[in-house]
Amino acid sequence: MYYLGVDLGGTNVAAGIVDETGKFLIKESIPTRGNRKQEEIVKDIAALCKKLISASGVKPGYIGIGSPGTCDTVNGVVVYANNLNFKNVPIRQMMNRYIDLPIYLGNDANCAAIGESMVGVGRGYSSSLFITLGTGVGGGIILNNQLVTGSFFNGGELGHTVIKFDGEKCSCGRYGCLEAYASATALIRETKIAAVKNQNSLINELSNNDITSITAKTAFDAMKKNDITATNVVNEYIKHLAIGLVNFVNIFEPEIIIIGGGVSAQGNFLIEPLKKLVSQESYGESLKTKIEIALLGNDAGIIGAAFLNK
Amino acid sequence: MYYLGVDLGGTNVAAGIVDETGKFLIKESIPTRGNRKQEEIVKDIAALCKKLISASGVKPGYIGIGSPGTCDTVNGVVVYANNLNFKNVPIRQMMNRYIDLPIYLGNDANCAAIGESMVGVGRGYSSSLFITLGTGVGGGIILNNQLVTGSFFNGGELGHTVIKFDGEKCSCGRYGCLEAYASATALIRETKIAAVKNQNSLINELSNNDITSITAKTAFDAMKKNDITATNVVNEYIKHLAIGLVNFVNIFEPEIIIIGGGVSAQGNFLIEPLKKLVSQESYGESLKTKIEIALLGNDAGIIGAAFLNK
Repeated sequence: MYYLGVDLGGTNVAAGIVDETGKFLIKESIPTRGNRKQEEIVKDIAALCKKLISASGVKPGYIGIGSPGTCDTVNGVVVYANNLNFKNVPIRQMMNRYIDLPIYLGNDANCAAIGESMVGVGRGYSSSLFITLGTGVGGGIILNNQLVTGSFFNGGELGHTVIKFDGEKCSCGRYGCLEAYASATALIRETKIAAVKNQNSLINELSNNDITSITAKTAFDAMKKNDITATNVVNEYIKHLAIGLVNFVNIFEPEIIIIGGGVSAQGNFLIEPLKKLVSQESYGESLKTKIEIALLGNDAGIIGAAFLNK
Repeated sequence: MYYLGVDLGGTNVAAGIVDETGKFLIKESIPTRGNRKQEEIVKDIAALCKKLISASGVKPGYIGIGSPGTCDTVNGVVVYANNLNFKNVPIRQMMNRYIDLPIYLGNDANCAAIGESMVGVGRGYSSSLFITLGTGVGGGIILNNQLVTGSFFNGGELGHTVIKFDGEKCSCGRYGCLEAYASATALIRETKIAAVKNQNSLINELSNNDITSITAKTAFDAMKKNDITATNVVNEYIKHLAIGLVNFVNIFEPEIIIIGGGVSAQGNFLIEPLKKLVSQESYGESLKTKIEIALLGNDAGIIGAAFLNK
């Protein structure tokens, strides 16, 4: 059996056909050009799918699409996705104008969770929690091999849980969300603040004294060269992330927490102190939940979309 | 079919036999006297069960036991319950020395969640979240008619999720847990602080100027008589509780949130402002999750235990 997955993003549409093990037969990406009409975007997605099917010579049993925002997975409708300007877009029905295959829809972060759970680092675990530390903090929860979507498709928003009452304003409108402290965006914000406050910090040298060039990597880079200011920024970042993860452990106690997104590139510099903090704070007598870096990178979304009905 | 449930508490052991609808045929409670040896406590539980079976004249298919603490529901072992001084107590095996019936075990708050979900206010919903506002904040999560226990039986600890980084110390050792703001204990703490700070507040009159006699009811009572200090205490309490509930909605989006425990006796004075706040803050476009007061009171635990294997 072969599976076709589409990762519909704000910038690019990436799609591919994978085998049972998640190995790609073919993969291609096109620009989304999200400012166009929905019809045109969906037409391009359908054309991309047709091209992949024809080029690979295999026919998948269905097409799975991962979309940002709230997805009505039952009816195949993107209820709301602000970065695509989608509101109640019946993507299943629209795709079927061009391709006569069943269309399955899922939230993009949920698809990535499925990908990592089925053929990534979460393979073999029936319950896992996937969290991406990128522009925002997205996530997906799998319990007993089933995705938790929420009763009305608004669940799984791990980043939008408040860990600091009346804290930093979050993109969702709340104050003090995990996303406002554990996203790459938050890390960059705190790195900039620290750089301005501590002119002697290596952060400034590494960013050529231009705070606009600070990335989510800068504080980690400076920390690795023993800069105290950067070390404090990283420690505070990890402390806040740990608070959020302990919350999830106390609620679900998954077998494994999988960390993805840009910040996860820091590997053990992120994971080792994180494990220590989560272990100290979680409710059970000893932490049994594993914490690991995601394996599949950007492919997780395509693979998970492809496996939406596997 | 008839079902026998036991609610093993720190103070009393309550047990009863119910029918399919959760209606009691018979119910009785005995003091736990938790400072005794485990063997003696379990022997008493077995004797109580035998007495109920004999007095009612019906034979249940099994016995369900709700216990505080961490319960290994697979092996029927109370892993850890600090208020009973239980550690790795094989209650199933011990009960079977006296009674030849299958024994099922569950966490007490989880049992209450099952009771409310099956025959209480959550009846008819496949996904619900039950939260008790008592000495602590306990809870139970039911998704797709299945209890979320955590992979290693430490899940469902809704009260031990941090909503205020570095906030009030919680009984679990963390700082800023929901329990430290939304329990009856927290409400009493804040009412006392407000009473001392505002000597003219009605709180002082209602408690006969003796702050030790302040209960979780006092602030609500004074608020109902338009006392400003009390109104602020209640508003802040509800605001914190709402933050926690919105977190859960953003994660699970259950069909219904069921509020139990002592503070839930305030009914609409609690629920109405709570609904408004949760609705304002939750991630989806409009809140579809219902919020209701629990129906079964203390019986929820016995009924839920009785239905552990229904």
